[in-house]
This record gives sequence, structure tokens and C-alpha cells, in this order.
Amino acid sequence: MNISTLSIGDEVIFGEIVDTNVAHIASRLYESGFQLRRHLCVGDNEPDIMDAIEMLASHNDFVIATGGLGPTVDDLTARSAARATARRLVLNEDALAHLKERYRIMNREMLPSTEKQALLPTKITLVPNPIGTACGFIIPHKGCFLFFLPGVPVEMKRMLDETVIPFILSRTKQKTSIETRVMRVLGLSETHVENRIKELARPREGLTIAYCVSFPEVEVKLRAEGENEARIRELLDTTAEKVREQLGDHLVAEGGETIDTVVASLFRKKGVTLSLAESCTGGLIAARITDLAGSSAYFLEGAVTYSNDTKIRRLQVLPELLEKEGAVSSTTAMAMARGIRKASGSDIALAVTGIAGPEGGSEEKPVGTVFLALAGRSDCTAKRYQFNGDRERIRRMTAFTALDWLRRHLMSLPDVQIED
Amino acid sequence: MNISTLSIGDEVIFGEIVDTNVAHIASRLYESGFQLRRHLCVGDNEPDIMDAIEMLASHNDFVIATGGLGPTVDDLTARSAARATARRLVLNEDALAHLKERYRIMNREMLPSTEKQALLPTKITLVPNPIGTACGFIIPHKGCFLFFLPGVPVEMKRMLDETVIPFILSRTKQKTSIETRVMRVLGLSETHVENRIKELARPREGLTIAYCVSFPEVEVKLRAEGENEARIRELLDTTAEKVREQLGDHLVAEGGETIDTVVASLFRKKGVTLSLAESCTGGLIAARITDLAGSSAYFLEGAVTYSNDTKIRRLQVLPELLEKEGAVSSTTAMAMARGIRKASGSDIALAVTGIAGPEGGSEEKPVGTVFLALAGRSDCTAKRYQFNGDRERIRRMTAFTALDWLRRHLMSLPDVQIED
Repeated sequence: MNISTLSIGDEVIFGEIVDTNVAHIASRLYESGFQLRRHLCVGDNEPDIMDAIEMLASHNDFVIATGGLGPTVDDLTARSAARATARRLVLNEDALAHLKERYRIMNREMLPSTEKQALLPTKITLVPNPIGTACGFIIPHKGCFLFFLPGVPVEMKRMLDETVIPFILSRTKQKTSIETRVMRVLGLSETHVENRIKELARPREGLTIAYCVSFPEVEVKLRAEGENEARIRELLDTTAEKVREQLGDHLVAEGGETIDTVVASLFRKKGVTLSLAESCTGGLIAARITDLAGSSAYFLEGAVTYSNDTKIRRLQVLPELLEKEGAVSSTTAMAMARGIRKASGSDIALAVTGIAGPEGGSEEKPVGTVFLALAGRSDCTAKRYQFNGDRERIRRMTAFTALDWLRRHLMSLPDVQIED
Repeated sequence: MNISTLSIGDEVIFGEIVDTNVAHIASRLYESGFQLRRHLCVGDNEPDIMDAIEMLASHNDFVIATGGLGPTVDDLTARSAARATARRLVLNEDALAHLKERYRIMNREMLPSTEKQALLPTKITLVPNPIGTACGFIIPHKGCFLFFLPGVPVEMKRMLDETVIPFILSRTKQKTSIETRVMRVLGLSETHVENRIKELARPREGLTIAYCVSFPEVEVKLRAEGENEARIRELLDTTAEKVREQLGDHLVAEGGETIDTVVASLFRKKGVTLSLAESCTGGLIAARITDLAGSSAYFLEGAVTYSNDTKIRRLQVLPELLEKEGAVSSTTAMAMARGIRKASGSDIALAVTGIAGPEGGSEEKPVGTVFLALAGRSDCTAKRYQFNGDRERIRRMTAFTALDWLRRHLMSLPDVQIED
């Protein structure tokens, strides 16, 4: 059984946006036991959309297309789909009623040009859009079901889950089940990860292992396929256990977990509170921590102290210390951690100071030099790191390293220097 | 002339990562006067990669493929490219020498399995990789040039700029030039934007206008194509001027600028300093501001004050006030802004308090209720907003609204309530 996706939009083909829809659709299909075969992307022009629809319809059982259903003149999907499947374009009364109802709810004036969103091919099944104006639709064509959904991710996701995936499931009899497990590794290169675990793969028994770098992590994906669901699960369970043994404390998260959610659970479970003092990361670590609902239970305070002045006033870092050692130094990092811990009354405090670049480096402390410090009620440790890459990469690597230190601290694991 | 891209990787087709490479390649091609025709994506399996190469080679003059050049067993691109173009796979001495040199520089042990990265098709031209281990390569095949690059974005970008685009430019004679201008709009819906400016498009003269929602902004793209570069530029200049008139102060940024860079330049130009107190955004606004190098010139301090305690201690918000009005209120927002401004000594201060959800809403203050306050040396204003969507969307909308308020304040523009 073949399922492919099609993204339609000049904004994708001209590189103005990163298309996140395909990743979402692919992963939802995967979770439902299907594999995406191909993804194709074309611009907002009729011949290319028609070509793509014809090509994909002849090679697939299901095609999920997104984009080009909007109200503006450059949205050509409905028209092109009609032509590619030899249908007329008509004002769909149900879609029009939906459109009017949405505008009524939003309490907005419906401009005449908006009616265009209800101009759809004949002989279709509508896909309801509970949160937006554009309905989707399904065209059965030459033994293939073509789904057309809006490109707006939040709307597409709802329609995919509520209509498209149930539709596909109801029309397929899967003989084999597929199950996967993702394990996230920090501090080992892709090759090192593979060398430690590759012999665990047993392709003949339906167990494969894939590797993927998601900087700075390496993702390991165990995938089992077979007819017996219980056997698949057991195979994954025993293999995952062996992977854990091989990767040790470099394994930071499994399944739907990330280093952020793992750290959050540890704080909650241990009843430990946290404060942060950030210089070069400028609030990035605080933003990641507070991105999770419920973080207020353990996160007491964050201080973004960019200037020396703020470090002195807010964190009680001594001016003499800044003068002598510099703002980017292990003693300053420790003073920052102690300062915010004392002020916030948190159990532990983490501080970051470094040179994210592109300016500000020196021979002794080049761009990428970062000091982290962790203060507890009676102790304080600092570490120096040297990261590579541009400003964004250095800030990201620093945030991961900080989160990993918190994880190791809360789990009483030994500290490691992360390989860049 | 046709140029298409091909992404190769199970991580893309299984939805484990968002493929950012195509957006980057498309936009770099666009800037060089080319348009991407199609983008195709397949998994790490030989038949699909071979199919894709054959199909794309027969319809294009240039194909830029990324991914699958890594050292692990699931990286199959070189082998599939060799088979698809009837070449043998050999150990490429130049690629091997490069590999050894990279490992020497990184001071890492080269594992035997790594040599696989030098197993490449015969009759190719190597594409140097100045920052990574995997060389790229060019295969001329049936009148098409096939480029193969690593999927690691930072390596791919360097190789694209240093080898691929110059190669394409040297082999094409462009008759027409293409120039584009992107204008970013906040606070108007896509339909409203289109209705204000659509009549400015003149397709017969080579001027088109496209619209794209990048939540919460709408992007307007002016695109001019023709033989006379000076005429194209003039057409864009006069049209952009008319668009500016129509969109007024809803136009937040143009060209390579974003609301972040516009706000940063305003702070620098006006010599105004800023401090922030963030509750529901938890450091997100500070992280955006400090994402830009040089922000230390105007950004003095950020306080992430999640708990009432921290608001009292750090920002001198009165306990009676929190008790009476609640942490999410206009008076608390104003007290937070005044508190951080006074403490940091900044010229202005912005404070955010709100309910990002999914918990914490009430009938009177549902999820999405956000208060912003802006304090100057002698005045302070607060505003209430009601945003829709999930936690991420509410936090993002709040950050944009805060940045827009700063922009309007520094430009002495009237305030507007942003349409959600």
C-alpha cells in the first residue's frame, strides 16, 4: 500500500517557509502503522499541480495534499485538482454555509472574494475544518483517494486526525503491524552510537535500527514489523533494554520524551526548585523550561544578566572579580549561580556566561567559550566548554549542555564533557 | 531551465525531522535568479532513490540532492546514485584523504566503518566540504547535472554557496532577471492584506504579488521578472512605495528585516535602553532579543518572574496588589514594568503576565488572557489581550505583540490591538 504527500505553494518552492506539514503527516501515519512513500512539492501553478496530481494518483493508493486552498488569487489547488481529475468547479453549498458560519463566529465581515474558498470540484466528499474557513475535500480518482487539506498547520492537523487517518484506516486491512521506539542520545557521535548498537539489529526478524542527527542529539530509532503485535512489542522491549546498556547515561530520553520533559519530571519528582542566571543564552534556557506547562512548580526565577552592571546589582557578583577574571570566567559563572540561588531561595541554581559570537572572542577565550556553574545549598561547581559553529549553534549547544547537567545532577550521574 | 531538489532520508519520510534544507536551497536559488521547479523526498531505500534520480534527471537540467552520505549502514545515496547512473562504486582517493584530514583536525579516532564515506561512484567531480567529513559529488547524466550533498544543514549550505550555485551560474545564460521583495505585515488578515493591494499587481508587465501566512504575520511578496534589470528594480520600488501607503503602520519589516531586527535597530538608533519582566512568556522575548548579536548595547536586564514570590521580591510588586487583583491583571503588569525599570535603570521596561494554558484559566480570565505593560521614566500603560490557540501559539502571539508595541513606541506610532 502506497501513501504519498504533496505540498502545494510558492512559499515552499521559493524557500520562504520551512514546510513542517510533511514531517507531521509522516509521523502521524507512522504512528498509525503506515509509511510515507514519497513527498513531492510544487509551486502555485496549474500545470505543475496537475502533473503532480496525475503522477501521484497513478502510483499511490492515498495522496494527502496540503496548501493552496486559501482565499487569495494565488491559491489554485481546487481549480487544478478539478482539471486534473476531469471535474467541473462549482460553488459547493455546504462549504459556503461553513464559510459563513466561521465568519459569524469570528465576528468578522466576509469579503466577497472569500467565497472563492467554496468553489470546489464536483463529486467530492468534504473534509470538515472545525477551526478554519477552508474545507478540505476527498476526490476518488483512478483507484486512488486524493485528500486536499489547507496548508495552515493547526487546521491541517485537526483534519488529518479527525477525517483523513480514520478514512485510510477504514479502507485498509493491515496484515503487518509496525511499531517504533525513538531513543535520544547526547554526547556521542553518530558513528560511535552506531558502533555500540548496530549488531542488535535483526532485519530478518523485522527489527531495524536507524540513526539521525538532530543537533546536538543523535536519535536512534528501533523499528519492528510483523504480524504478531505482542511479539513485536517484546522484540522492541528486549532490544531497547540492550540499547540502554550500551549507551549508558548518554541516553537522555525515550519515546515521546525529550531532554526538556525528562528534566521537568526529575524536578517535580525530587521536589527540587531551580533558578537561572543567563548571560550568553539570554533567556533561551528559561524559555525552554517554561515552554512546558506546570514548570511554575519548580522554576522560581530567571535572570537575564547581559551587562556587568546587572551582574553586580542583581547577582551580587563583585566588581573586583569581574575586573580581574572577566565576565566570561569560571569564577564569574560561580558567583552568578550563587547570587541567583541566594536571591531566589531555590535549592539549586544554574548560571551561564560565554561568548556566542560573532564578535567578542579573544585568543585566550575564542568565540564558543562557555562557562556553566551549578550551585547547591553548600557547594558550587563550574565547567569550561569550547563549542563550535555560529551564534545559534553555540546558544543551542549551551542550552542542551545546561539541561544535561541538570539531568545528571538530579539523577546523581557522573558529569561528562559533551562531544561537540 | 529546470532545477529540482531531492531530499533523501528515512528521518524525513518518517516525520522525525522537519526538512529545512529545501527552504534554504530554494531561497538561495531564488536570490540567484532561479526558481525551484519541484521538490521530491524519498526514504533511505535503494529502489526509491534510484527511481527518484531517474525521474528527476529526465525532467531537469540540474538536480540538487541532499542526505544519505553519512557513515552509517542506512546511508545509501552514493550506492544508489552509482546504480541509477550505471557507474561502479570505488574508493575515491581524494575523498579518503579529505576524510583522514578531517579526523586529524578534530583529533578523533577514525573508525574503519567511516571509510564508507569515501566509497563513491566513478566519473564524478568532488564537491569539497570545508567543515565536515562527507564530500559531495557531481554526476553528469543524460544532459542533467546531479549534485549530491550531505544533509547536515551547516555543511550543505557552505557547499551550495561555494560550489553548486557558482557551477549552475557558470553553465546557464539567463535571459531574464528575477527580483523579489518581501514585506511583513502584522495585525491584518491575509484577505484584508490582499484586498488592500491586489490591484497593484501587473502580471503582463512581469509584476506579481503573493501572500503567505507566517503566524502571526502575513508576508507579501512582490516579484518582478524581465530583461531589463533597472526597469525591474524601478517597478519594484514604485510598487513597494504604494504597498507601504496601503498597509500603513501594519507593515513591520521589509527585505531581509524581521520585526526583531527592526526593533533592534530602533533601540540602537534612538539610544534607548530596555529591560523586561516576563511571566507567561518565561524568557521567550529576552531570548528573541538576545538572539541578535549586539543586543547588549540596549538590553540591560530580563527577569523571568514566574511565582508571586519572585514578583514581590524581584520587582517590588506589592503583596496586597497581587492578593487583590491577581497575578494576571493590568495593575500587576504595570507594577512589574515599573519594578524592573527602576531596578535596571533602563529607559523603558516591558512586562508580560498572562495565562498561556492549558490550565489556569477562569471564566473571567480564560486561557489566552494576556496583559502587557510598558513603563517609561514618568509614565506607564497596560493593555489587555485575548489570544486563541495552544500554549505555543499564545506565547508566540504574545512575543510578537510585545515586540510590535516596542516598535510602535520607538517610532511614535499609535498603538493598535492586533487581530488574532
